[in-house]
Amino acid sequence: MTAPIWARAGTRVHDEVMAFLAGEDILHDREIFIFDIEATSAHVRGLARIGALEEVDAECVVDALNVLAEEFKAGEFVLDSRFEDGHSAIESWLCDRIGEIGRRVHLGRSRNDQALVAVRLKTRSALAEIRASVLATAEAALIIADENAHVAMPGYTHLQRAVPSTIGLWMASFAEAFLDDAELLDFTLSWIDRCPLGTAAGYGVNLPLDREGVADDLGFSHLQINPMAAQASRGKHELQALAAIWQPLQTLRRLGWDLTLFASSEFGFVKMPQDLTTGSSIMPNKRNPDVAEIFRANAAVVAGAMSEIQQVISLPSGYHRDLQLTKGPLLRGLTAGQASLALAPTMISGLVFDEANLRAAIDAPMYATDEAVEMTSSGMPFRDAYRQLADHGVWNANRTPEQSARARVSLGACADLRLDQLRARLADQLALRNQCAPSE
Amino acid sequence: MTAPIWARAGTRVHDEVMAFLAGEDILHDREIFIFDIEATSAHVRGLARIGALEEVDAECVVDALNVLAEEFKAGEFVLDSRFEDGHSAIESWLCDRIGEIGRRVHLGRSRNDQALVAVRLKTRSALAEIRASVLATAEAALIIADENAHVAMPGYTHLQRAVPSTIGLWMASFAEAFLDDAELLDFTLSWIDRCPLGTAAGYGVNLPLDREGVADDLGFSHLQINPMAAQASRGKHELQALAAIWQPLQTLRRLGWDLTLFASSEFGFVKMPQDLTTGSSIMPNKRNPDVAEIFRANAAVVAGAMSEIQQVISLPSGYHRDLQLTKGPLLRGLTAGQASLALAPTMISGLVFDEANLRAAIDAPMYATDEAVEMTSSGMPFRDAYRQLADHGVWNANRTPEQSARARVSLGACADLRLDQLRARLADQLALRNQCAPSE
Amino acid sequence: MTAPIWARAGTRVHDEVMAFLAGEDILHDREIFIFDIEATSAHVRGLARIGALEEVDAECVVDALNVLAEEFKAGEFVLDSRFEDGHSAIESWLCDRIGEIGRRVHLGRSRNDQALVAVRLKTRSALAEIRASVLATAEAALIIADENAHVAMPGYTHLQRAVPSTIGLWMASFAEAFLDDAELLDFTLSWIDRCPLGTAAGYGVNLPLDREGVADDLGFSHLQINPMAAQASRGKHELQALAAIWQPLQTLRRLGWDLTLFASSEFGFVKMPQDLTTGSSIMPNKRNPDVAEIFRANAAVVAGAMSEIQQVISLPSGYHRDLQLTKGPLLRGLTAGQASLALAPTMISGLVFDEANLRAAIDAPMYATDEAVEMTSSGMPFRDAYRQLADHGVWNANRTPEQSARARVSLGACADLRLDQLRARLADQLALRNQCAPSE
Amino acid sequence: MTAPIWARAGTRVHDEVMAFLAGEDILHDREIFIFDIEATSAHVRGLARIGALEEVDAECVVDALNVLAEEFKAGEFVLDSRFEDGHSAIESWLCDRIGEIGRRVHLGRSRNDQALVAVRLKTRSALAEIRASVLATAEAALIIADENAHVAMPGYTHLQRAVPSTIGLWMASFAEAFLDDAELLDFTLSWIDRCPLGTAAGYGVNLPLDREGVADDLGFSHLQINPMAAQASRGKHELQALAAIWQPLQTLRRLGWDLTLFASSEFGFVKMPQDLTTGSSIMPNKRNPDVAEIFRANAAVVAGAMSEIQQVISLPSGYHRDLQLTKGPLLRGLTAGQASLALAPTMISGLVFDEANLRAAIDAPMYATDEAVEMTSSGMPFRDAYRQLADHGVWNANRTPEQSARARVSLGACADLRLDQLRARLADQLALRNQCAPSE
Repeated sequence: MTAPIWARAGTRVHDEVMAFLAGEDILHDREIFIFDIEATSAHVRGLARIGALEEVDAECVVDALNVLAEEFKAGEFVLDSRFEDGHSAIESWLCDRIGEIGRRVHLGRSRNDQALVAVRLKTRSALAEIRASVLATAEAALIIADENAHVAMPGYTHLQRAVPSTIGLWMASFAEAFLDDAELLDFTLSWIDRCPLGTAAGYGVNLPLDREGVADDLGFSHLQINPMAAQASRGKHELQALAAIWQPLQTLRRLGWDLTLFASSEFGFVKMPQDLTTGSSIMPNKRNPDVAEIFRANAAVVAGAMSEIQQVISLPSGYHRDLQLTKGPLLRGLTAGQASLALAPTMISGLVFDEANLRAAIDAPMYATDEAVEMTSSGMPFRDAYRQLADHGVWNANRTPEQSARARVSLGACADLRLDQLRARLADQLALRNQCAPSE
Repeated sequence: MTAPIWARAGTRVHDEVMAFLAGEDILHDREIFIFDIEATSAHVRGLARIGALEEVDAECVVDALNVLAEEFKAGEFVLDSRFEDGHSAIESWLCDRIGEIGRRVHLGRSRNDQALVAVRLKTRSALAEIRASVLATAEAALIIADENAHVAMPGYTHLQRAVPSTIGLWMASFAEAFLDDAELLDFTLSWIDRCPLGTAAGYGVNLPLDREGVADDLGFSHLQINPMAAQASRGKHELQALAAIWQPLQTLRRLGWDLTLFASSEFGFVKMPQDLTTGSSIMPNKRNPDVAEIFRANAAVVAGAMSEIQQVISLPSGYHRDLQLTKGPLLRGLTAGQASLALAPTMISGLVFDEANLRAAIDAPMYATDEAVEMTSSGMPFRDAYRQLADHGVWNANRTPEQSARARVSLGACADLRLDQLRARLADQLALRNQCAPSE
Repeated sequence: MTAPIWARAGTRVHDEVMAFLAGEDILHDREIFIFDIEATSAHVRGLARIGALEEVDAECVVDALNVLAEEFKAGEFVLDSRFEDGHSAIESWLCDRIGEIGRRVHLGRSRNDQALVAVRLKTRSALAEIRASVLATAEAALIIADENAHVAMPGYTHLQRAVPSTIGLWMASFAEAFLDDAELLDFTLSWIDRCPLGTAAGYGVNLPLDREGVADDLGFSHLQINPMAAQASRGKHELQALAAIWQPLQTLRRLGWDLTLFASSEFGFVKMPQDLTTGSSIMPNKRNPDVAEIFRANAAVVAGAMSEIQQVISLPSGYHRDLQLTKGPLLRGLTAGQASLALAPTMISGLVFDEANLRAAIDAPMYATDEAVEMTSSGMPFRDAYRQLADHGVWNANRTPEQSARARVSLGACADLRLDQLRARLADQLALRNQCAPSE
Repeated sequence: MTAPIWARAGTRVHDEVMAFLAGEDILHDREIFIFDIEATSAHVRGLARIGALEEVDAECVVDALNVLAEEFKAGEFVLDSRFEDGHSAIESWLCDRIGEIGRRVHLGRSRNDQALVAVRLKTRSALAEIRASVLATAEAALIIADENAHVAMPGYTHLQRAVPSTIGLWMASFAEAFLDDAELLDFTLSWIDRCPLGTAAGYGVNLPLDREGVADDLGFSHLQINPMAAQASRGKHELQALAAIWQPLQTLRRLGWDLTLFASSEFGFVKMPQDLTTGSSIMPNKRNPDVAEIFRANAAVVAGAMSEIQQVISLPSGYHRDLQLTKGPLLRGLTAGQASLALAPTMISGLVFDEANLRAAIDAPMYATDEAVEMTSSGMPFRDAYRQLADHGVWNANRTPEQSARARVSLGACADLRLDQLRARLADQLALRNQCAPSE
C-alpha cells in the first residue's frame, strides 16, 4: 500500500492496522469514485475562481481528472487496496500524473468533505433512478388494473376469505401506494439537495471559498451553510434516503407476499413470467418464485441498513471515524432499492391470471357483508342485521361476484376505482422537472 | 368484560385469550380515544348526508359523542379492560346511552377503518406539536448563537482538539439542523394528510359514502382512494412519521452528548440549568445531567419503534391482526418525541458558559491548519505545507482564537455564520399556514 | 409528588422535569417492585450480619417489607407517580412506617444497585417461566407428531408443492426447534445467574458487605465481582435474555405463518381451536386467526426491544441515566414471550386436521425427486436422472403419499422421525433441577 | 455465465435476472467455499459407505476436491460470476474435471443442504477464533489491572466525577466482562454444534444416508434430526451466533468510548499505541484514535446484521429464497467480530497511563460518599448523613485517593479486586478442550 497522505516522518504504519481501518472502504469507494472525481473538479474550479489556484493549473487538474474518470470506467485504473481510500487515491494519482499541481488540490478541503459530497451525489443519483423505477412500476400496475378492472377475485382479511373483490382493486392499490412512495422520494431528493462541499474538517477554512459557485457547478439547489451541521448530517441524510427507499420496497414486499401465495397450487390465481422464476438443484419438478421472494427480502436489507446507521451515530459533535461506517449500509440499501425496483415493472406487466380459479374462490358467505348493509335499507340497525346473519349463518347464494363488485360504490371501491385520478397523479409526478438527474 | 361485538350465539370467549389479544391495546386506545370519537362524529354526519341515517338520529349520536368526550376528558368515563378496545367501547357506550340509534353507527365502517383514521389524526396532531417544538428549539439555538457569536471554543474531531472555533458556530449548527428537521416534519405532515375513513374492511362497501365530505369535516386535504392501499398504509405512514421524529431526536442526541461532555469537570465548558439536573441516592456530592442523557436515549426509543414496526409488517395484502401491533411502537415514539422536544428550548436557553475554560482549551497546535493554508499563499502546494508542519511540529504560538475565527471566512464558518439566512428559514417555517393544526 | 431523596436544601424540582425523567418508570417499576422488596430484605439482613445494622432493626425492616409486599399484592399500596421511582418508594414508605430505622436502609447501596438486582430477579423469574412454557409446547408438538406420524401432507419449498411429507415430520420440526430453544433459555438462565447487589454506585463501598451471603439469600449461584462490570452488564444481560426469548418466538412465528396459511380456505388443512379465533365487527361471516397472528407479531416486539436496547447502550463506563431506558424494552419483551408461549400448548393441542384436503394436495410431480433418486440405483448419475425428468416432465402417477413417506428413510425424515430421541431430550430438560425457580 | 444446473430444455435464463438473484452471493460464497468443499467430501464418503457410490469413485471425487481447495487457496481457481453460486461451482468444476463421476455427487442433497452446512462450519470456525481473541483480551486486561491495581483514577457516573477509583478496578471490569462474553461464546459454539447435512431440500430423501457418520467426519457432536427443523434453523443459529459476538463487541464499545474520552486533551489520562492511531488529511497537528472508534462502531455492524436477519425470516415452514439473504449479514458480523477482537489485546497491552493527570482529577467532593458511610458508624442513619453532607457541601480535604481505595473493602471493589478469581475463570476457559477448533 502507498503511504497514507497523513504519514509523518518517523511514524510507522502497520499493514494489519491499515487493513482493519480500511475494512471494505475501498470496495465502497468504487461506487462513489466517479462522484468524488466530479466534486474534485468542481472544487478545483472554485479554487481558481478565488485565485487560490492558477487558472491554467486548474484546467490541468480538471483534464487529468477527466482522464482518471475515463480510465476508471474502462477498468484501466483499478481502485484497490494500494490506496487508503478513494479520496487519497485521487490526490495520489494526480501527484503521480501532474506532479506539483496535484499537491495543490487538497487546499481548503478535507477527506470528510470529499466523502460527504461524493456520498451525497451518489445518493441523489440513486434516489432519482429509484424514483423513476417506482413511477414505471406504478404505471405498469395502473395498466393491469385498467385491463382487469372488473375481473373478480376474492378479497381477504387475516388470509381468510372476506368479501368479493376485483383484480382492478388489487392492482390499483399498488399503483396508489407506489405513487405515495414516489412523492416521498421526490421530497427526499429535494431535502438532501444541499451541497456540503467547502466545510473542510467541519469548521470551515481561512479562505473565501466560492461555495455557492461550487454548489451550482455540481447542480445543487442549496448549500449546507454551517460546517458542523454539514458534518452532523452524515447518517441523518442517509437515514432519510433509506427511509424513502424502504417505502416502495415495503410496497413491493406486499406484492412479493401476494404473488408467492397466489402462485401456489392451492390459490392458483396467477403465473409469474417464467424467466422471473428458477429451478431446484434436487427437485426436477420445481419452478420457484425467487424474484418475488427477493422483492420481499430486500425490504429487510434496507431496514437493517437503517438500524445499523442509527446505531453508529450516537456521537458528540465533530467528525468521528465511526461515521465512515455509514457508507456500507447506505450503499447496500441503495443497491437493494435500485435492483428490486428496476425489475418490478417487468414482473407486474408479465403476470398472467387464471380467471376461473379466481372466480371459483368466491363463495357464498363472502356476500354476508353486502347483505347486512342491504338489510339496513329497510330501517334495521346495522348491528342487528350483523347479528342476525352471524348467528344464523344462512347466506343468500343467488349472487355473483360481478353484482357485488358493481354495488360496491363507495369512493375507491370496485365500482369506483378512480383510475383517472391515479393517472393524473402519475402524470404530475412524471412532469416534474427531472430535478435531480443522475450525474452519471 | 362485555361480550365482543362479534360474539356469536353459542361461541365461547375465554378471558385469558381476550387478555392475550388485547395486550396493552386498551392503554394505547386511551391516547387515540378522542380522535376515534371525533372521526365517529364525522362518519355519522356523512351517513346522514347520504340518507343512510336520519338527520335527527345523527344529531343525537353526535351530541352523545360530545358527552362521551367530555366524560372521558374529565375522567368520568374510564376506558379500561371492560372493553375489547376503544372502538368497541364507543359503540357499546352509545348503545347503552341512546339505544337502537347506537346500533346504527357502525354501518359502512369497520374497526380497522376506525383504527386507521384515529391513529392518523393522533399522528397528525403529535407531528404538528413536535414541529412547533423543533422550531422553538431552533429559535433558542439561534439566539444563543447570536449572543455568543464570537466567544471562542475549541473545535474537535475524533474528540481531539482540532482547530479554534466559536460558540456561535456550535450553536448555529444546531439551529440549522433543527430547521432541516422541521422541513422534513412539515413535508411528512402533508404526506400523511390523507383520509382513510370510508374504506371499511379494506374493500369498500355497497353504500355511496360521502368520503370527500367526511375528509373535509376532519380537516384532511386529500383522500386515500383505494381501500386496499389505505389498509396497506398501516405501518408505512407510521414509519415515515417516526423517521421524521427521529431526525430532531438525533440532533438532540448530539446535543445531549455535547452537553454531558462539556459539563464534565474535565471540560468544564458549560453548566446546564440546575432544575434540569438531578442528584444521587448515595453520593451527596453529585449533580447529574439526566435530562441531557434522556435526550440522548430517546433517539433510541424511536429507532427501536421503527425497527419493531418494520418487522411486524412483512405481510400479504389485506388486514391482519399483526397490524394492531404497530400502535404501541408508534405511540411510544410520538411520546418520546413530544416529551424531549418540549424541554429542548428550556435546556438551550438556560446554558451558562465558562468562557475562561473554553478559551484555555485552545492550544498552539490547533493553529496548524490555518498556518498550512497561509503558507500556500506564497505559492507552496498545500500538501508540502502540510507535510512540513506535520513533520516538524513547531507551532506558531503568537495567535489568538479570535484571530483564527475572524480569518475563517469560508461561507458558514466562524467569520460568516449567516445567521440571517437561518433566521429567514425559521421565519418561513413559522409563517407556513399551520396546515395540520392539532385537533385537540 | 414526594420530594426526591436527593433533594437538597434550596434546590427546586420542577414537576414537568420530574415527569419527563420518570417517563413510564413507575409503571415499569410495578413489575419489579416485589423483587426490589425481596432484595432490600436481603440487603438489610446482610447489613445486620456485618454489624452495620442492629439485628433487631433489621428484623423490624424485614417485617415492614413483608407488610409492604402484602399491601402491594393486595392493591392497598399503589406504586404511582407520588414517587420518583419504586426504589425511592420503598425507602420513603419505610421512613413513614418505621421512622429512623428506615433512614438506615440505604447504607451501602445505590438505586442503580437496587435496579440492577430487581431487574435481574425479574428476568430470572420470567425466563424460568418461559422455559417451562417452551418445554410444554415441545411436549404438545411431540404428542401431535406421534398421533399423526403417518398422516400425509404436502411438503413445500418456496410455498410451491415440493415432495410428499407427513404431519409427523411437520410437528416434530416444531418439537425439535422448541427443544433447542429451551436449551438456550436454560443456559441463558445460568449466564445471568450472578448477583450484582453490593456494587453500590459502581465503585463498591467502604464497608465489608457480605455480598456472598446476600447472593445466597437471593438464590444466586454466582456473584458479579467487579462493580464496574456489574454496572456495564446492564443492557448486556437484557440483550441475551431477549435473544433467548426471541428464539422460541421465532419458532412460534413460523407456526403462526403455517397456521394462518393452512387454515385458509384455499389450503383447508387445519382448524384452530374455535376459542382461539375471533370475529369481525363488520363481516358477519368471518372467523379470524388472531392468536396465531399475534404469535407471529410478538417476535417483532422482542426484536424491536433488542434493537432499542442496543441503541441505548453506546456509552462510556459508569452509570448513565440512559441505562434506565433498558427497562421498558426488556419488560415488553418478557411480557410478549410469557404471553405467547403460555398459549402455545393450547393452540397445538387443539388443532384439528382435514386429512382429505391434506392428501388431495399431493400431486404427481411431487414424486419426481423420489423417482430421480431411484433411477440412480441402476447406475445413472443423479444429474442425468434429474435432467431427464426435468426436461420431459412425465411423472409416474402410480405412487401414493404413504409409499413415498415410507421410503424416505434418511435419519429424521418421514420414515425415521426419531421421536424417541426428541422425547429423551425433553425428559432431560424437564429433569434439570429447576435451577432458577421464579421467586414469586 | 454457465447455465444453471436446474436449467431445463427450452427455458430462457435472462442475465439481468440471474444477476439480480445472485446479488453478492458469489462474493459471500468465497468465504464459505472451503467449508462447502469439506462438506462435499464428507457427503461423498458417506454415499460410499451406504453403497450409493463406488468407493473408488468417492476417492476420485475427494482427491479432486482437494485439488480444488488448493487451487482456490492459491488463487488459481477464482469463484466469480461465471457460476450461479459456490455450490453449483463445485458440481460444475467436478463435472469438468472428472466427468460422469461428478454428475453423481449431488445424489441425496440439495443446495440448501450445502449452504446450511457450509455456513454452519464457517460460523463454528469464526466463533472459535473470536472466543480465543476474547480470552486473549481478558488476559491482557487482567495483566494491566494487576500492574496498576493501586494507581488512582477518578470514578465517574453520568460522566461526572463520583468517587475515587483505580486503574485496577477499571481494567478488571473489562477482564470480567470479557470472561462473561467468552462463556456465552463457548455455549453458543456448543449450541450450534449440530450437523444439518443430509436433510436434502428439507424433507429428507429415499436413501439411508449415513448422517451420523458424516457428522462425525465433520467434527460435529450432534445432529439436527428433523429436516424441516434444520431448514428452519437458518437465521436462528445465525442470530444467536451474532448475539454472542455482539457481547464482546459491546464490551469493546465501552472500551472504545473510555479510550477516546480518556485520550482527549481534557482528560489526558491515557495514550493509545501510536501505531493504532492515524493522522488527518488537512490538519497537520492531529493524531486520531480511529481504531478505538471502529471498536465502537463495529458493535453497530453486528447489531444491524441481527436486525436484518430477524426481518428476513418472517416466513412459513420450508425453504424460501429469502433465507439466502441471511448470509450477507452473518458474514459481515463475523468479520466485524474477528477483526475488532484480534486487535483488542494489542490495544490494551499498549496503553500508557498519565498517573499525574489521573490523580489530579480526583477532587475533594469525591470523598463525600466515604464520609457519609463513616458517619453512620457512630449510629447516624445513612439518609441523615447524606442529607447533612448534601446540604452543607463542606468536604473534608484531608484524604487521599489511596486511602479511599484501601478503605473500599466491599467484595470486588478497589481494596478487594479478586483478580485471582478472574484468573481462575480465565484458566478454566483456556483449559476447555478446544471443542470446536476451526477447520481451516
